[in-house]
Amino acid sequence: MNFCNHCGEAVELTTPEGDNRPRYVCTVCDFIHYQNPRIIAGCIAEHDNKILLCKRAIEPRIGQWTLPAGFMENNETTLEAAQRETFEEATAKINNSQLFCTISIPHISQVYIMYRGQLANGFSEPGTESLETKLFSEHDIDWEHLAFPVIKQSLNLYFTDKKNGQFKIHNGEMIRDEDNITTTTFY
Amino acid sequence: MNFCNHCGEAVELTTPEGDNRPRYVCTVCDFIHYQNPRIIAGCIAEHDNKILLCKRAIEPRIGQWTLPAGFMENNETTLEAAQRETFEEATAKINNSQLFCTISIPHISQVYIMYRGQLANGFSEPGTESLETKLFSEHDIDWEHLAFPVIKQSLNLYFTDKKNGQFKIHNGEMIRDEDNITTTTFY
Repeated sequence: MNFCNHCGEAVELTTPEGDNRPRYVCTVCDFIHYQNPRIIAGCIAEHDNKILLCKRAIEPRIGQWTLPAGFMENNETTLEAAQRETFEEATAKINNSQLFCTISIPHISQVYIMYRGQLANGFSEPGTESLETKLFSEHDIDWEHLAFPVIKQSLNLYFTDKKNGQFKIHNGEMIRDEDNITTTTFY
Repeated sequence: MNFCNHCGEAVELTTPEGDNRPRYVCTVCDFIHYQNPRIIAGCIAEHDNKILLCKRAIEPRIGQWTLPAGFMENNETTLEAAQRETFEEATAKINNSQLFCTISIPHISQVYIMYRGQLANGFSEPGTESLETKLFSEHDIDWEHLAFPVIKQSLNLYFTDKKNGQFKIHNGEMIRDEDNITTTTFY
C-alpha cells in the first residue's frame, strides 16, 4: 500500500497512538488503513455417498480439483457466501446446510468456513470458474493433487466423520513454519 | 474509496470483466480493490459460574458492558485473535478454549467468532480499552444495556446451553431489515 484511499496522498507504516502494531496511516489526512483476514466460504455437497468437486478454470492451481469455495463478500452471511460460491462454480444448490469446519491459515491471513449438505437433485455443471464438475467417492479422489492443502484437510475430516457415523463441527488451524512445513491442529 | 492504494490515481466503481458485482477499480493501473467482511473474535470466559464482562472505555457504546472481543488481525488464527483481545481488554487468560458460536451480521459486514473457556485463576483487570472488568452471574447482567445485540445473543446461547448441561457450537445470523428490525436465526 502506497497511497491513501481517501485523499490520494502518501501513506506511511507507523503505529498509531493507542495501537500496538504498525498500520498504513495517511501522512496528510491521518486515515488509518486497517488490513484484516479474509473469509473463504464453501460447501461439501454430498450425493449418493459422493462429494462434489470442481476442476479449477482459473489460477492459482488451474486444472486441479477443489471444493466449491471463494471469498465471502460484504453484506452476506457465511452460509450465503458458501451457497453463492457453490452455485457460481458448480451451478449447484445445497439442502440441509450445516456448519462443518472453520480453519485459520494465518500465513495467508485467511479463514476457511466450510458447510456440508446434500447436493440438490444430484445436479451440477461447471460455472465460469470451473472446467468440470464431478461427484467423487473417497477412493476416486486423487488425494495428492487436490488444489489446496486446506481442501484435502476438509475432505479428510468429512470422510472420517462419515465413517464414524457422526458429523462434528471442527475448528482448527494450519500453520506453515519457516521451513515450509505445515502443522494442522484441531482444538 | 476515492483513490488507488497502489498508484494514487482515481478509482471508479465498475464491474470488472468476468465479475458479477461492482468493485473500486483504478482508472490508471486497473488494480481491483476488493472489500470483504471482517471477523470479530472474542471469548466467553467463565469462573465460579460467572462470566467475564468488560465496561467499554472507547466508542462506540462507551460505558456499556460487553464480552472481550475485537477485530481479528492479519497473520493470526481466530483462537489467537480471541485470546489476544481478551488479554488486551481484560488482562485475562483463558483455559480450555472451545469454539462456541459464529454469527454473521451482514448489514455491517461482520462475522463474530466466539470461543468459550475457563478464566485462568479467575483473574482480570481492565486493559486500556476497558474502564472496568467484572464477573457476572446470569441474573446480575443488565441484559437490556449490553453494548451490542450480538453480545446479548451470545450470552443467551451460553446460559441456555449451560442450563441444558451441554454446550453446542452455534452458527447463525442476525439480519436487520429496512425497518431496523433484527431477525436472529441459528441453523
